[in-house]
Amino acid sequence: MNLYTQPMLREDALKDKVAIVTGGGSGLGKAMTKYFLQLGAKVVITSRNLEKLQVTAKELEDELRSNREFQNDNEKNNEQTGGKVLCVACDVRNWDEVEAMKEATLKEFGKIDILLNNAAGNFISPTERLTHSAFDSILDIVLKGTKNCTLSIGKHWIDSKTPGTVLNIVTTYAWTGSAYVVPSACAKAGVLAMTRSLAVEWAKYGIRFNAIAPGPFPTKGAWDRLLPGDLQEKFDMRKKVPLRRVGEHQELANLAAYLVSDYSAYMNGEVVTIDGGEWLQGAGEFNMLEDIPQEMWDALEAMIKAKKSN
Amino acid sequence: MNLYTQPMLREDALKDKVAIVTGGGSGLGKAMTKYFLQLGAKVVITSRNLEKLQVTAKELEDELRSNREFQNDNEKNNEQTGGKVLCVACDVRNWDEVEAMKEATLKEFGKIDILLNNAAGNFISPTERLTHSAFDSILDIVLKGTKNCTLSIGKHWIDSKTPGTVLNIVTTYAWTGSAYVVPSACAKAGVLAMTRSLAVEWAKYGIRFNAIAPGPFPTKGAWDRLLPGDLQEKFDMRKKVPLRRVGEHQELANLAAYLVSDYSAYMNGEVVTIDGGEWLQGAGEFNMLEDIPQEMWDALEAMIKAKKSN
Amino acid sequence: MNLYTQPMLREDALKDKVAIVTGGGSGLGKAMTKYFLQLGAKVVITSRNLEKLQVTAKELEDELRSNREFQNDNEKNNEQTGGKVLCVACDVRNWDEVEAMKEATLKEFGKIDILLNNAAGNFISPTERLTHSAFDSILDIVLKGTKNCTLSIGKHWIDSKTPGTVLNIVTTYAWTGSAYVVPSACAKAGVLAMTRSLAVEWAKYGIRFNAIAPGPFPTKGAWDRLLPGDLQEKFDMRKKVPLRRVGEHQELANLAAYLVSDYSAYMNGEVVTIDGGEWLQGAGEFNMLEDIPQEMWDALEAMIKAKKSN
Amino acid sequence: MNLYTQPMLREDALKDKVAIVTGGGSGLGKAMTKYFLQLGAKVVITSRNLEKLQVTAKELEDELRSNREFQNDNEKNNEQTGGKVLCVACDVRNWDEVEAMKEATLKEFGKIDILLNNAAGNFISPTERLTHSAFDSILDIVLKGTKNCTLSIGKHWIDSKTPGTVLNIVTTYAWTGSAYVVPSACAKAGVLAMTRSLAVEWAKYGIRFNAIAPGPFPTKGAWDRLLPGDLQEKFDMRKKVPLRRVGEHQELANLAAYLVSDYSAYMNGEVVTIDGGEWLQGAGEFNMLEDIPQEMWDALEAMIKAKKSN
Repeated sequence: MNLYTQPMLREDALKDKVAIVTGGGSGLGKAMTKYFLQLGAKVVITSRNLEKLQVTAKELEDELRSNREFQNDNEKNNEQTGGKVLCVACDVRNWDEVEAMKEATLKEFGKIDILLNNAAGNFISPTERLTHSAFDSILDIVLKGTKNCTLSIGKHWIDSKTPGTVLNIVTTYAWTGSAYVVPSACAKAGVLAMTRSLAVEWAKYGIRFNAIAPGPFPTKGAWDRLLPGDLQEKFDMRKKVPLRRVGEHQELANLAAYLVSDYSAYMNGEVVTIDGGEWLQGAGEFNMLEDIPQEMWDALEAMIKAKKSN
Repeated sequence: MNLYTQPMLREDALKDKVAIVTGGGSGLGKAMTKYFLQLGAKVVITSRNLEKLQVTAKELEDELRSNREFQNDNEKNNEQTGGKVLCVACDVRNWDEVEAMKEATLKEFGKIDILLNNAAGNFISPTERLTHSAFDSILDIVLKGTKNCTLSIGKHWIDSKTPGTVLNIVTTYAWTGSAYVVPSACAKAGVLAMTRSLAVEWAKYGIRFNAIAPGPFPTKGAWDRLLPGDLQEKFDMRKKVPLRRVGEHQELANLAAYLVSDYSAYMNGEVVTIDGGEWLQGAGEFNMLEDIPQEMWDALEAMIKAKKSN
Repeated sequence: MNLYTQPMLREDALKDKVAIVTGGGSGLGKAMTKYFLQLGAKVVITSRNLEKLQVTAKELEDELRSNREFQNDNEKNNEQTGGKVLCVACDVRNWDEVEAMKEATLKEFGKIDILLNNAAGNFISPTERLTHSAFDSILDIVLKGTKNCTLSIGKHWIDSKTPGTVLNIVTTYAWTGSAYVVPSACAKAGVLAMTRSLAVEWAKYGIRFNAIAPGPFPTKGAWDRLLPGDLQEKFDMRKKVPLRRVGEHQELANLAAYLVSDYSAYMNGEVVTIDGGEWLQGAGEFNMLEDIPQEMWDALEAMIKAKKSN
Repeated sequence: MNLYTQPMLREDALKDKVAIVTGGGSGLGKAMTKYFLQLGAKVVITSRNLEKLQVTAKELEDELRSNREFQNDNEKNNEQTGGKVLCVACDVRNWDEVEAMKEATLKEFGKIDILLNNAAGNFISPTERLTHSAFDSILDIVLKGTKNCTLSIGKHWIDSKTPGTVLNIVTTYAWTGSAYVVPSACAKAGVLAMTRSLAVEWAKYGIRFNAIAPGPFPTKGAWDRLLPGDLQEKFDMRKKVPLRRVGEHQELANLAAYLVSDYSAYMNGEVVTIDGGEWLQGAGEFNMLEDIPQEMWDALEAMIKAKKSN
């Protein structure tokens, strides 16, 4: 059993914290929600699809309960706190729905400690095949949606003089750009800039911002549809990663839990990449020489001398 | 006379090129338009305010004509080409208006070679004082506006199998983020990602993308209003710049003309910062030691030895 | 008690791991060593000064023992593993001494799992006051020293077909540069590039590389001498940090332990900044508007309208 | 004839400037030297091989003279100024030789305006096959060499209260790192940090620093040996570049001349990449989808809908 598939933080690292996870009903949002719950948090998950959320909530709470019953036989602790999930239907593009989601959270849990902006949308397409409104819809979900949640909950924190922590999920191509996912690249870059801007501006209010740029973490809900059918084989993400594997959800969840917990209190405005080195493998000019076999290096070693244009 | 206030490129560097400059009626857009005209380009300037555009157009054409008459007494060249300005009212947020602007350009000049996405908006404000819709309006002007122009004209280039060049004006805080101008930071970051993404994706169509990140280049039209009254003195931009001066418009125009000309044909996806070192002065951890006077260094030199935690 | 002053990882996160910490005898190196020991690691600490190392080793082992005795009354575990410190005198600039240090480690512990390149040197000085050889000495300690340890131990890992993890301590100015610490900036930038290069190249051998760029974490051993006397007050680092405090050693130790543990197995080639947002506060163009009081924003709010050069 | 193979700056852009070009005897250094001469500069070229320098000097002066004779028939200008080449043997690793080179320059031309740190060395090799001293030799040539020239000539500028401009040639992998050229990556990263650090620190002395990160610009002297034989075909650099071509030397020379001229006076601390988009093509996560043919996009367009994890 690999250690990295295991939870890493001390138990109760998020005890009594209230976290909102947008897009928390599936995929990576669900994986992070699950771990936050294990660490003692109460979590609000949002999505446009309430039914899907409720299925997820039941699944997570059941799993948590059976884990606890097992533990409690030994340790008799932790019964009451954390582990509660609230489902709120919310289209993050819509300011009023975001405000209502905030109110529902405060009504249920009385406070908000953590906002995880995870809801996203993406098209994989040559850009010239997109209509201007298709392009807009991604900008609206990702950038305006993140802005709506951040502004709504941030104003609440500032008005009520309570601290908070925001974690934004971006991508490695938020910085490098990427063809074929251009609306997402633009929107995620905007979220990255928001992270860094407000990390400075709102620090005086006790609000901290960080982001994660995940590499390939396949999910049933998104990855499958992003690269359908045989294309998944042709464009095997693992070859693009120096470590030659994709990420495990718990690895992302570990990092996310660290970044929303008080253990990372001195990290602010930082974007942490967790991609096995994927973007670097592509970016470095001579990395493709990986394809040269050892025997050829042996032969070359004789031939190649210091290159000095000096 | 400082060389950097002078035009740098060989005459006719943009001969017969057709350039669209959004927000070309004032400020830096006007300065770049003026130089493009001098270099032989025909320029379409756009803004929501047609009257302002027409005043600018007349001023630029008059100035160009008098320069040419002076030159022609000596050299008798260059009479017919370039130097034409077309004014088109266009709100870049509106797809239909952008399409109409494209059509007007093609009708007048028969082609488009260069798109300079310069139109922008900005609020200087604590972010918590912004309404969600005020925030949106900046995203719409800067990011969706740039996307509309790029998508509209890019599709034209691709459909008509003609090459083109796009230059986007961003900011140094597109990458670092900045407090108090957060909507602009998010939007410009999106434009930066668009630059890098399409530089790769559309290179096969002969379309090249670059960007400029300007530091402080004061303009009547924008800077005055951005830092009104005595605040301009309190927050003197020159102190933030290692070179201790703000930029001259011709310096930006020189760089912009280079980047839209064929001389920069091998630059693609690049963001060139021209800020006198402003962002670096702020960013480097020990740069504030600039305030230590030389005598104190003399004293310290005796005291300070190598710091080795080895 | 702040959570961030507490250890964050599950106990035994580094159980039976053998770690080399260069410059481990004092300052941040000592803090990281201490936490690695608590997590079950055996640690080799190196420095040119053997005596200093031995004092540190005794202190750390004593502290660990008393903690364990306290724990063992309750839990009866963990007695035998980890917690051993080996002191090796080693000037990392000297290849032969590095090789000898490697051999000493293997002789004592039989393997190496983790290399933490933490040894460093720095001058705070106007660059024109440095001799070329003073400049060289920092390059040699920081860049060549890191290279020597990495190459020596990396070759061992590759030859013996065993995996390993390298963590390099750099600085935020490795990327932005910084005046007055230029040799260090150059050397740390080199270490950063080494981190990213070998993260790709040596991943196939099961060797992972990451780095930390710490902001202000004051230490008796280094910070005091870096900014002596009243200069420490004049250049109060806390003002440069949005969070308005310096970092606690445990915060850095938590991050470092995460990055050398298997929990971070999918992070590779990443440089994690932990500086409270310090570099961003300096870098963002309008961050200095923090000095505008709220009343003035009230007044401005009336005056300032949307800035649209469109 | 492509415009980008032509000189771009106004004649006399470097009139009477004295430039030192390390490694100026061959390859890109020679190409930049040639253009500086055409623009009116006097150039000192250095290398360890005096004979090679002298062959280059004669070739460049002859070429320049014949161009001028042709021009002078028409224009009768420019006869006396610029176009002089001084050859100085100098191993940039050796401080005393660098000092002697500085003195020789001052003796011949009476001043120094421009320093172009272009001398470099590189090994293409798996890092584990390098000896520690082979690694050091690249660090010494590239990083210490650049430091020696910069410190020597910088001190002269500061002592004599004369302004100056430094241009450093780095690489795109100075930032991203790269496997198989790791010593070069480390050293060039150090040069990049030096560029940004001193751009801030020495601006008060009127000394400006910038850098160029060139992509593939093949040269007889270096490229051939770097990728010998059939490997050049296997690893065709053009495929890695969105523009599908390598760079022309004049394109680099145009950029370099701009950056050392007073036209770029407001650029300071900037690293300009000129690589046709090469590093971005590798870096962007979905750029490999370029290999999907248009028909497949047609098919996908039906299948793929918006991906919204919201």
